[in-house]
Amino acid sequence: MLSEARSPWTLARRAARMNPSVLRELLKLTERPGIISFAGGLPSPATFPVSEFAAASAQVLRDDGPAALQYAASEGFGPLREQVAAALPWPVDPAQVLITTGSQQGLDLVAKVLVDAGSRVLVETPTYLGALQAFAPMEPEVVGVRSDEEGVLLDDLEAKAAGARFLYLLPNFQNPTGRTMSESRRAALSALAKRLQLPIVEDNPYGELWFDRPPPAPLSARDPQGCIYLGSFSKVLAPGLRLGFLVAPPSLYPKLLQAKQAADLHSPGFNQRIAARVVESDFLQHHVPRIRDLYRAQRDAMLAALAREMAGLGVAWNTPSGGMFLWARLPRGMSASALLPAAVDAGVAFVPGAAFYADAASEPDAERTLRLSFVTATVPQIDAGVAALGRAIRAQAPP
Amino acid sequence: MLSEARSPWTLARRAARMNPSVLRELLKLTERPGIISFAGGLPSPATFPVSEFAAASAQVLRDDGPAALQYAASEGFGPLREQVAAALPWPVDPAQVLITTGSQQGLDLVAKVLVDAGSRVLVETPTYLGALQAFAPMEPEVVGVRSDEEGVLLDDLEAKAAGARFLYLLPNFQNPTGRTMSESRRAALSALAKRLQLPIVEDNPYGELWFDRPPPAPLSARDPQGCIYLGSFSKVLAPGLRLGFLVAPPSLYPKLLQAKQAADLHSPGFNQRIAARVVESDFLQHHVPRIRDLYRAQRDAMLAALAREMAGLGVAWNTPSGGMFLWARLPRGMSASALLPAAVDAGVAFVPGAAFYADAASEPDAERTLRLSFVTATVPQIDAGVAALGRAIRAQAPP
Repeated sequence: MLSEARSPWTLARRAARMNPSVLRELLKLTERPGIISFAGGLPSPATFPVSEFAAASAQVLRDDGPAALQYAASEGFGPLREQVAAALPWPVDPAQVLITTGSQQGLDLVAKVLVDAGSRVLVETPTYLGALQAFAPMEPEVVGVRSDEEGVLLDDLEAKAAGARFLYLLPNFQNPTGRTMSESRRAALSALAKRLQLPIVEDNPYGELWFDRPPPAPLSARDPQGCIYLGSFSKVLAPGLRLGFLVAPPSLYPKLLQAKQAADLHSPGFNQRIAARVVESDFLQHHVPRIRDLYRAQRDAMLAALAREMAGLGVAWNTPSGGMFLWARLPRGMSASALLPAAVDAGVAFVPGAAFYADAASEPDAERTLRLSFVTATVPQIDAGVAALGRAIRAQAPP
Repeated sequence: MLSEARSPWTLARRAARMNPSVLRELLKLTERPGIISFAGGLPSPATFPVSEFAAASAQVLRDDGPAALQYAASEGFGPLREQVAAALPWPVDPAQVLITTGSQQGLDLVAKVLVDAGSRVLVETPTYLGALQAFAPMEPEVVGVRSDEEGVLLDDLEAKAAGARFLYLLPNFQNPTGRTMSESRRAALSALAKRLQLPIVEDNPYGELWFDRPPPAPLSARDPQGCIYLGSFSKVLAPGLRLGFLVAPPSLYPKLLQAKQAADLHSPGFNQRIAARVVESDFLQHHVPRIRDLYRAQRDAMLAALAREMAGLGVAWNTPSGGMFLWARLPRGMSASALLPAAVDAGVAFVPGAAFYADAASEPDAERTLRLSFVTATVPQIDAGVAALGRAIRAQAPP
């Protein structure tokens, strides 16, 4: 009789908390040829500065090849840290800047340094799925704080803050909702967090992508000692470089640095030098406004298409003032996850909003929400995709 | 009266296990201008294929720019995964290959997926310091297994294996000792590990850097289901790309992939395409033998200099058959860490071997050992550095 070999491997307890990303599985669905995708959070490739990178790559290898290709400091490339510090809207010492392998790595490092098994971590409801995934291996108790169009609700925050290790927030053009925290909410939140001695982890990948005016000052600018700030080059340069950064108070920086060193020694020196070359020219001063113009036009196209195609369907949506995402809600009785297969059959994809809730079951409206990215598809695709979405909704809408 | 603001931050328990790398602090000492360094594990910049990278960067951006700069699959770039699988000396499905941000990240992912607080992890004595650092945040009980010139001692391994999550090994030209596990020890170890149901994490960053003949077959080739294999492009291409890979059994791959996704989404697609371009040409077939020739000549220079300069001092050393490091032992009564400041004053640096022991205090000889890298310094520097080291030892040697 044959017996199957017993596996010698024992998984860590935390592995049970790691799960295939719902989003990832959904995105596979949307990769079918011909599908118009509002699902992914992919910057428009039209904004990638290919020729500037080609010039910068050649210059870096010509002028500084051996250093760019050697092992390097875990903190990051000095000139890039200085550029990051200088560009932030509050006084930041470059010594507080840590270059990370995408801002996703910043979340991993923060969790390692601040989260014990069972530690309470507060997040917006809904919030960035990748943050939930980055925190999960450290086995936190993640608690969602309710939000409205201006940001987290302070009474709910205060009720849940006791013992929390930190509050994780995306104040600007949030993923998934596209919401921006108002100036008055920021001021009140910052005062409350100080009073509660509640640290804040402020994630700002989209802040530069404003359409009409810059968003209010970051929470980190209001209380640098009580905040860790995460930033990214993925949205203003390109995600494929995998470059982000964090800014931490001096009391935390050494532990974050040690976690960084243990995680991947350092982020690629070649890539850091390419980014530094591009940043030191005046390229971004012209480039970022072009990204804003493009994304604003695409948002406007999506808003117009929604007004046109959703008439009479009872669908609601917001008007993001920047970023990449718009948040919509189906009429009562409908389900975004039930809609998705029909939408894909009609040729358009989105992400059901429930995926972004730390605890979707306790949020009665979560199942009706959906995230629509307006940056990856072109304007004609947006028009066709929203029309297809309208048809799919009409077919499932309650009478 | 002024009172200092109380910090709002609470560190995770694991943060106490993260410490500044001894090595890192030592390396700072050795960065003084004019110091000949045998300390760092830095590949010779003379081996970095700067012009090939320049050509590959230009091609990637010209032919495939938007894809190279966009978000990408967490598994890694398909063609590179296929190249990795095809180059390994046992049948590997590309689906089992995960591209990592340096092989250091492989260690982080392995620890996340396999180590609980208090889990027993077995390591060689001494072992790679970066592995101890990568494992530390997951709070293992690290247990050192004694080794001789042929590898870990199997009786000591068997005595310590009960309940261990895995045994971590560098069988080829080990860091720090330069030792290579013999064929007979590999065969016996593989059989013992199967009998004990003890998984093996096999780290092989240096395997291609052999001087006379390739090392014996990997442990992973003998039992692919019982091994995770870690590899690196840092030693055959360049560390500054931060590219490594792991090969895992199908039962473990999904969890490692989820950990990878949470850690940094994916490794830079631009860098992966550059590496794939360089690998797909026949460049490495010519390049790797040149690295071997260079490092062999530098090893020979160091052996000759040691024979010349250490005569009569009671210093012992080994003859590595590849890699980057040579392992030496001072006479009884001397201390490598006490020697280091005098050596630096004399113009030469090394790493005291005690840094590489999981539990140096229990190893009576650890304090007498030192790691000498022969790859970063040139032959004239090796001659001058070993002479300076000889003078420093002479001045401290017991009468």
